[in-house]
Amino acid sequence: MIAVFGDETLIAGAFRFEAALARASAAEGFIPAAAAMVIAQACAEATFDPVILSEEAAHAGTLAIPLVRRLRELVAAEDESAAQFVHFGATSQDLADTALMLQAKAGVELIRREGAALTTALERLSESQAEIPMLGRTLMQSALPITLGFKAANWLLGVEAGLRRLSREADEALSCQLGGAVGALVGLNPEVVGRVALDLGLSAPPMAWHARRDGVAGMCAALAILTGDVGKIARDVSLLAQGEVGEAREPVTAGRGGSSAMAHKRNPTGCQVALSAALRAPALASAVMSGLPQEHERGLGGWQAEGPQLATLFELAHGALSAMAPVIAGLEIDPQSLRRNLAAAAVGDDTGHAAALTRAAIAFIRRDT
Amino acid sequence: MIAVFGDETLIAGAFRFEAALARASAAEGFIPAAAAMVIAQACAEATFDPVILSEEAAHAGTLAIPLVRRLRELVAAEDESAAQFVHFGATSQDLADTALMLQAKAGVELIRREGAALTTALERLSESQAEIPMLGRTLMQSALPITLGFKAANWLLGVEAGLRRLSREADEALSCQLGGAVGALVGLNPEVVGRVALDLGLSAPPMAWHARRDGVAGMCAALAILTGDVGKIARDVSLLAQGEVGEAREPVTAGRGGSSAMAHKRNPTGCQVALSAALRAPALASAVMSGLPQEHERGLGGWQAEGPQLATLFELAHGALSAMAPVIAGLEIDPQSLRRNLAAAAVGDDTGHAAALTRAAIAFIRRDT
Amino acid sequence: MIAVFGDETLIAGAFRFEAALARASAAEGFIPAAAAMVIAQACAEATFDPVILSEEAAHAGTLAIPLVRRLRELVAAEDESAAQFVHFGATSQDLADTALMLQAKAGVELIRREGAALTTALERLSESQAEIPMLGRTLMQSALPITLGFKAANWLLGVEAGLRRLSREADEALSCQLGGAVGALVGLNPEVVGRVALDLGLSAPPMAWHARRDGVAGMCAALAILTGDVGKIARDVSLLAQGEVGEAREPVTAGRGGSSAMAHKRNPTGCQVALSAALRAPALASAVMSGLPQEHERGLGGWQAEGPQLATLFELAHGALSAMAPVIAGLEIDPQSLRRNLAAAAVGDDTGHAAALTRAAIAFIRRDT
Amino acid sequence: MIAVFGDETLIAGAFRFEAALARASAAEGFIPAAAAMVIAQACAEATFDPVILSEEAAHAGTLAIPLVRRLRELVAAEDESAAQFVHFGATSQDLADTALMLQAKAGVELIRREGAALTTALERLSESQAEIPMLGRTLMQSALPITLGFKAANWLLGVEAGLRRLSREADEALSCQLGGAVGALVGLNPEVVGRVALDLGLSAPPMAWHARRDGVAGMCAALAILTGDVGKIARDVSLLAQGEVGEAREPVTAGRGGSSAMAHKRNPTGCQVALSAALRAPALASAVMSGLPQEHERGLGGWQAEGPQLATLFELAHGALSAMAPVIAGLEIDPQSLRRNLAAAAVGDDTGHAAALTRAAIAFIRRDT
Repeated sequence: MIAVFGDETLIAGAFRFEAALARASAAEGFIPAAAAMVIAQACAEATFDPVILSEEAAHAGTLAIPLVRRLRELVAAEDESAAQFVHFGATSQDLADTALMLQAKAGVELIRREGAALTTALERLSESQAEIPMLGRTLMQSALPITLGFKAANWLLGVEAGLRRLSREADEALSCQLGGAVGALVGLNPEVVGRVALDLGLSAPPMAWHARRDGVAGMCAALAILTGDVGKIARDVSLLAQGEVGEAREPVTAGRGGSSAMAHKRNPTGCQVALSAALRAPALASAVMSGLPQEHERGLGGWQAEGPQLATLFELAHGALSAMAPVIAGLEIDPQSLRRNLAAAAVGDDTGHAAALTRAAIAFIRRDT
Repeated sequence: MIAVFGDETLIAGAFRFEAALARASAAEGFIPAAAAMVIAQACAEATFDPVILSEEAAHAGTLAIPLVRRLRELVAAEDESAAQFVHFGATSQDLADTALMLQAKAGVELIRREGAALTTALERLSESQAEIPMLGRTLMQSALPITLGFKAANWLLGVEAGLRRLSREADEALSCQLGGAVGALVGLNPEVVGRVALDLGLSAPPMAWHARRDGVAGMCAALAILTGDVGKIARDVSLLAQGEVGEAREPVTAGRGGSSAMAHKRNPTGCQVALSAALRAPALASAVMSGLPQEHERGLGGWQAEGPQLATLFELAHGALSAMAPVIAGLEIDPQSLRRNLAAAAVGDDTGHAAALTRAAIAFIRRDT
Repeated sequence: MIAVFGDETLIAGAFRFEAALARASAAEGFIPAAAAMVIAQACAEATFDPVILSEEAAHAGTLAIPLVRRLRELVAAEDESAAQFVHFGATSQDLADTALMLQAKAGVELIRREGAALTTALERLSESQAEIPMLGRTLMQSALPITLGFKAANWLLGVEAGLRRLSREADEALSCQLGGAVGALVGLNPEVVGRVALDLGLSAPPMAWHARRDGVAGMCAALAILTGDVGKIARDVSLLAQGEVGEAREPVTAGRGGSSAMAHKRNPTGCQVALSAALRAPALASAVMSGLPQEHERGLGGWQAEGPQLATLFELAHGALSAMAPVIAGLEIDPQSLRRNLAAAAVGDDTGHAAALTRAAIAFIRRDT
Repeated sequence: MIAVFGDETLIAGAFRFEAALARASAAEGFIPAAAAMVIAQACAEATFDPVILSEEAAHAGTLAIPLVRRLRELVAAEDESAAQFVHFGATSQDLADTALMLQAKAGVELIRREGAALTTALERLSESQAEIPMLGRTLMQSALPITLGFKAANWLLGVEAGLRRLSREADEALSCQLGGAVGALVGLNPEVVGRVALDLGLSAPPMAWHARRDGVAGMCAALAILTGDVGKIARDVSLLAQGEVGEAREPVTAGRGGSSAMAHKRNPTGCQVALSAALRAPALASAVMSGLPQEHERGLGGWQAEGPQLATLFELAHGALSAMAPVIAGLEIDPQSLRRNLAAAAVGDDTGHAAALTRAAIAFIRRDT
């Protein structure tokens, strides 16, 4: 995920945008076909040092300025007359936003993959432990019996809801950005937008969304909530793994969970990663929401703040999923502690409809497949 | 909206829950039908002082304790044997969450009503001004021409996306809460949940969501984003209404927008309300997201923090919509200033495809109706 | 604290401001002494329905408009010629901000009182339990021995640091607001500001801070951090009170901590209140910080958003302190569980310098008294 | 600032900690003086690949594990018997927190330097323009006259207050962390803490603050507020630089502020950087505050989340200051526009006490020097 949101991937996305723009503009007759071919070729072959380009972008206030300048040089070296058609009709933010959405699209794929690993592990845990009684706890106090599968099914429902929300928001947000200086497509036409979108595997918005950041904010919120859904599992596992409780603990992973001061300890490092992510994510989403009231056709400071927040949110959600999927897949359960703590609470053994609800939850999850 | 989230409505919702629970429990044979009738009757007639009850709830840590005690007294006065069947099988949080969802359902309706008023006004503005040229601005600088309808269409797309998100999230979140102490439905069965949900016009979740707050968090995020979508309009209107720009200003509303120091001023008070709401809302949503990693079957402190945040978010979103709907409906446009500022910028008069994009945006909005 | 930030107190503060302004303006010769007397008298006697006034304020966009209008009527009834000198030279925000600071000053006093109750209880606990061994825990795992007093001393240092920060920020922030329309004191002079400040027990700022909200933001941050410092105690107490740990629990408070589903339970309701507050507070502070880049001499939407956030932050900090002070003062410690859990962890009994550090911490706390 | 919070500097700080710990432990007789010399020598010479070490740290869940292992190997190569005294008595978090505080100390220095550049520029602007009339604006509307120096003096007071707050918080927070596994200094003594602190130029806390994060939270809040104080300037400058206002604009900086779509534009890129920072910073601070209720002696997930937030906050505050210092130093003022807009507003030319207040503000700023 760090690679997906790295400078190299961003630059690669920027070149994909410029190539798609050139092809689409040529197809609609705005630029010569020959120029489009030279531009697309240059985009495919261009290799710029991402560190230098990032510094230039930081200075210029936008990536497009130095990237387009260099691309024009490359194109001009091949065909002087084609250089003027680089970035034709587009504005800096068209490039920046479309490249960001290409990164986001790849990010959603990675999240789905890790999400599937976690939900699969949760389904197995729910099913196999549907009937295993354990103590339920409320307000941090011993309460009444549940089953372990019931507990896992609740985790599962949370993560699945979080993944579905992200899919919904991605469907809304993953559209290409192309409007030119003020979004009015001066020098281009709406068909170009459709072509660029098709070329890049993004949707085509009815109008450029330069200053309408609802979709990005929705995706950020979905990532933060998903991270919190995973954090819920981590909270519970870390509570169950306490010395006095001892009902479950993270599997051993070589080189992980050790202590520099206490050799005997096995720390719940997977939970730590997920809880830390769940603590950081909501605020990042809130910063993006705070930036929604942007100025006029393209704002000052608002959308420029979104990239780092979105990237970090993808990293946090992905990190939390990646940390907890193996924890759940290999969760070490101590049946004796489960029984001992339940017995010690002296609250009987009536688990009510816990097993049936567990199966209902699993059926609910599988409803669409 | 303040009434919807007031103590009286909360208490009324709590009684609706208790009545529905009694009826459903009787239908499934868990409590006598006669007892259910007495309980439902008492719920319908009960009138408690909301101030006193709120204080008792604050002291007890939950509304259910004092409310159920008083309801039992009322029922016992009618039929001693029925009192034991009040709140049968339920836990405090079942009542609190279901009552909150009933409030949220009413809140969503109010938002939809105000949202429709705003989108209708925006559609009209977009359509009637689709061809009126004005200066587009980017990064707070004069840029190139757009049309006023194009600007309004962008606002419209934002608000419509925000309203759709809220609908999606409400579909997910507005379910009844019923699980008993640890969610395992001890003493009841899943069918009771279905009946209570049907009775109250909420959906029935596959399992109780006492510690799975994904849905509430999603609704909070949707409200915050919607508020930001409206705040975007307010930002632009307040910029257009500056003395040196003078392109648009809020309509006169008696008693609003005056200044205690400068009698000649007309302040953009509608924008002020919306911008203030857009500033406050994201943080409230973030606090709810931060609370997602709740402990075990029912957490400590996390869900108890949600009620006030959700209520305030509904108030802010509703307040922003209510403030801006009349502003847009009565927006005073100064054609002369539009022309003067565009001419002064000396950027020509090519509005590109602004008008066509405006119409495309309106068509997009109307696609489902 | 709810009373301190209620509408009645706000209105009372507004009258105190108007009275002080009239006296100061007269002392500096800007308005007739007789008019000032009539105005001050009217302010002292005025009683307006806070509900009606709040509604009018919400409509007008500021409290000053309806309040000054009514005050002028009262004054005019007494002395027609004096009415024009009401609110002389001031702007709405002068009144609103000064009244808010008067509320904040009272709020700080209440916090100090509750803070002293909590720190006194913590000092006692630290001192009396300085040598009592217990299991220390890190990363939610059993670690090595500490003492109970050592644990409490850490809580104490946190709360004391939080209270000191609030005092520092209050020293910065609690100044009167008076600048007139744009802060330039047209029609008044800087000496009037000094006189009003003295009259009201606030400091006099070098310039009006209408759009310079650094002080308010600092106070909000200090309240949020203090709430988190108290939340840390609640986190630990709730962990120690778990059934399997059983080392400490909240004292019994009549009518508090009960469960509507499980009669045997004793819920840590004090901790719940504090944890809930600690979850809500940071976001409120962040919203105020987000509003710092306000526009020009007096902004639109930014400062108007602060009042509710500041009020809620005072309530949350005060609520957390009030909830935890009796919990610590009456904390029920189970020496047997302390010993059993420590022994079960098999980590020896070397508490290192825990007792000495505890005493050092207490000495540090007392350094200034 | 990016270098200060880079992996290399973190690792260098970790080595400084280990060297100081070895020297202090030897001075207090806990480890042999010869071993301390070998360890300190190894720390001074060690060069590890920061990329590899960061990956190992991410996997282990803490930097200390791989770093201490490698340091032990280096020391053992020199003197087998000394290796056991590496990291003697310390825990992972001692190293992590102390290294973070060393970074923070360097960060505060950089902030002070940039802060001085900005305040110097603001003082000059205030002084030189103290008498230059301009239009004051409130609620985004034309209001009454002020002077340009008065406006700048308000900016100055904000930034100065923000810098003072950061100094206060740094005084509280910049202390070394040393407590061993649970903070009880098993195997060491409090004097070692004092020695390590002295060696590293940090203060010595009365007790380890592993789970008492009040100081870090305070520093984060101070950085966020300072960023907002600078954002306020950027907001105003960007408003003054609008085409229709034209009263001030950013100086030309080669390669900055260009537009890829409109060659004629000069974008306020410095303001963009500062506004973007002011949008992102508050949420980061809020995440750290949310983490205050950490568990027991050293928490799970809470403090691990702080490093990235604190680092980003330093970068944002520093970035905002660095962006705005040259903007203010070279601010291009258009006297004609100042006069034209003031005249057009037809609000007279009485600037009240604006000039006197400006001078009072400058005197206030200089009071301590």
